[in-house]
Amino acid sequence: MTKHAVTYELIKECPRSGARLGRLHTPHGTFETPMFMPVGTQATVKTLAPEELYDMGSQVILSNTYHLFLRPGHELVRKAGGLHKFMNYKRGMLTDSGGFQVFSLGAMRKITEEGVMFRSHIDGSKQFLSPEVSTQVQEALGADIAMAFDECIPYPADFDYAKRSTERTTRWAKRCLETHTREDQSMFGIVQGGMYPELRRMSVQQLTELDFAGYGIGGLSVGEPKSMMYDILSHTTELMPKDKARYLMGVGTADCIVEAVNLGVDMFDCVFPTRVARNGTAMTHTGRLVVRNATYAEDFRPIEEGCDCYACRNFSRAYIRHLFKAEEIFGLRLLSIHNLHFLLHFAKEIREAIANDCFPEFRERFLENYR
Amino acid sequence: MTKHAVTYELIKECPRSGARLGRLHTPHGTFETPMFMPVGTQATVKTLAPEELYDMGSQVILSNTYHLFLRPGHELVRKAGGLHKFMNYKRGMLTDSGGFQVFSLGAMRKITEEGVMFRSHIDGSKQFLSPEVSTQVQEALGADIAMAFDECIPYPADFDYAKRSTERTTRWAKRCLETHTREDQSMFGIVQGGMYPELRRMSVQQLTELDFAGYGIGGLSVGEPKSMMYDILSHTTELMPKDKARYLMGVGTADCIVEAVNLGVDMFDCVFPTRVARNGTAMTHTGRLVVRNATYAEDFRPIEEGCDCYACRNFSRAYIRHLFKAEEIFGLRLLSIHNLHFLLHFAKEIREAIANDCFPEFRERFLENYR
Repeated sequence: MTKHAVTYELIKECPRSGARLGRLHTPHGTFETPMFMPVGTQATVKTLAPEELYDMGSQVILSNTYHLFLRPGHELVRKAGGLHKFMNYKRGMLTDSGGFQVFSLGAMRKITEEGVMFRSHIDGSKQFLSPEVSTQVQEALGADIAMAFDECIPYPADFDYAKRSTERTTRWAKRCLETHTREDQSMFGIVQGGMYPELRRMSVQQLTELDFAGYGIGGLSVGEPKSMMYDILSHTTELMPKDKARYLMGVGTADCIVEAVNLGVDMFDCVFPTRVARNGTAMTHTGRLVVRNATYAEDFRPIEEGCDCYACRNFSRAYIRHLFKAEEIFGLRLLSIHNLHFLLHFAKEIREAIANDCFPEFRERFLENYR
Repeated sequence: MTKHAVTYELIKECPRSGARLGRLHTPHGTFETPMFMPVGTQATVKTLAPEELYDMGSQVILSNTYHLFLRPGHELVRKAGGLHKFMNYKRGMLTDSGGFQVFSLGAMRKITEEGVMFRSHIDGSKQFLSPEVSTQVQEALGADIAMAFDECIPYPADFDYAKRSTERTTRWAKRCLETHTREDQSMFGIVQGGMYPELRRMSVQQLTELDFAGYGIGGLSVGEPKSMMYDILSHTTELMPKDKARYLMGVGTADCIVEAVNLGVDMFDCVFPTRVARNGTAMTHTGRLVVRNATYAEDFRPIEEGCDCYACRNFSRAYIRHLFKAEEIFGLRLLSIHNLHFLLHFAKEIREAIANDCFPEFRERFLENYR
């Protein structure tokens, strides 16, 4: 086994749940888990500056291989000195493999054992991603954590398809590791297996035999009922090694995060907070608040009482609503700040609850008030 | 004469030009002139936070009566505690009268002695602005400086029309002053007169007989040749009182600012820097730089070498170009920051040149390099 650039340190396990407190050591600093990672798809967390992310306690952020491969191109990012320098973010970074995005292209892509041929959503040009290409692109981008190139199984999928796909994800994972050379970057494998516990077991077994620094859990939150997601997640995490980080990919609402932490997950990412922000929706401890609504026209309170984010400390619902009605960009910024701060702060509340031996009570109280 | 809430203090006159160094004392602080005022049309300087404006040395900002009257409505802003509190800007503020905007509506408005009937650009509803309404709206908004409701004469305009219009602007100015009651707000009159020196003289004479705290110079930069603008400006400023601020409305390119300072102007505003920023154009000491252009794709230098704005300290042309190509809002922010910083810093360079007795040399050197 090689010495990994990124390592997970387990600090504490909650004795009454699966929740765990840990630290992720990376070349760009040590970060605390459970953690939410803001998404910077195109080398920018939409509307925000790096300093705004630092201010709200952002640790690791995620960027997308698929998007950067197509624009501006990974060679340009390499010339810029890597993604950290290009976008001037000084803390941890993770790049996904591009797998999820190309599979989402539907009719515009074709999967073979070799890799995936697809058409660019930007100009329709023919493109190719494979375990080797994805790994090389991610090395050029130079994030602390690269993800193995996997196939995301849609929901629903029959058992045979899910099995063949999961086995291919394992073969692809091996090819990723064989290609990977950067010593200041670690690679995470991605557990697949669809909604079949035995395939999840097979995927965990096959991938943990390989030398990954941590593990993503893919193929969840793809349209299945929440109860099914939690069920599969529970089957998956209990098989996973305790000494490596577990990253539930693409999950980013507060209720799902607290439930997944309860089942032993350490890392999360999602575009949800910034996407709904751009639609005028704020995330709060009691659910969503649609600040565009007329009911807030003369409401001079902050988005959420008690929130200490920049938006809530300085601006009213009435002002933010005005900015949305007037189509002013500053409104998008303020809600993006609030929503990301909300999830980053929520992860911090979870960490404190685990540290203080009251995570089960925290979870229960939160879910009681959340709509 | 009443004691004005806003006063101009003349610090120094350049002995070899019309340039003057001064201070504007307002209820929200004392600010240095010559000064450029960023425009926050809809109670937000497009894309930017107040702290970003403070960081770049912003002093007085401008907001638009026409826009805020229609949306969110001045009564809502009054309930919020005024515009300063609503948008959380703690330094100086000026509101225009709405005159320029309603006249710009063309066929959608009708001017009478009483005021202007117009249709809202938002919902087509019938609206009315007059000297009295504009003054009352501006009192509700509560900026430090309110502007008198005037008629902006288009270019070209025949002498008779320009004369009748200029006389009406004087009558309207009187009605504004008669309506105005707020003691923590001062009103500036607006000199009109079109491109006719004798009408400019008449306007200055009539308005300076009234009790205004300062004077706008309106109806310039409306399509006339630059040489004509400077000529009329020169005729106008030489007639204006030395103990009050002179504000050339709607002018905001570096070459026009340095020329107008040379002719004795103290204050400027323009949407130009933020508008061209949103098109991917940066302002520099040597002219415009279209950062969207392919030539900057792999240019890892800052927008302008030597510039100490946030964008130039932290990001490359290549990155900003990528943000524009990818339609990312952070690109609009970075160029808006750069362009406003450029003009605010340019005004500071002008003030230092006047203080150091080298304004004529500064002006000459600047114009030599500017394209």
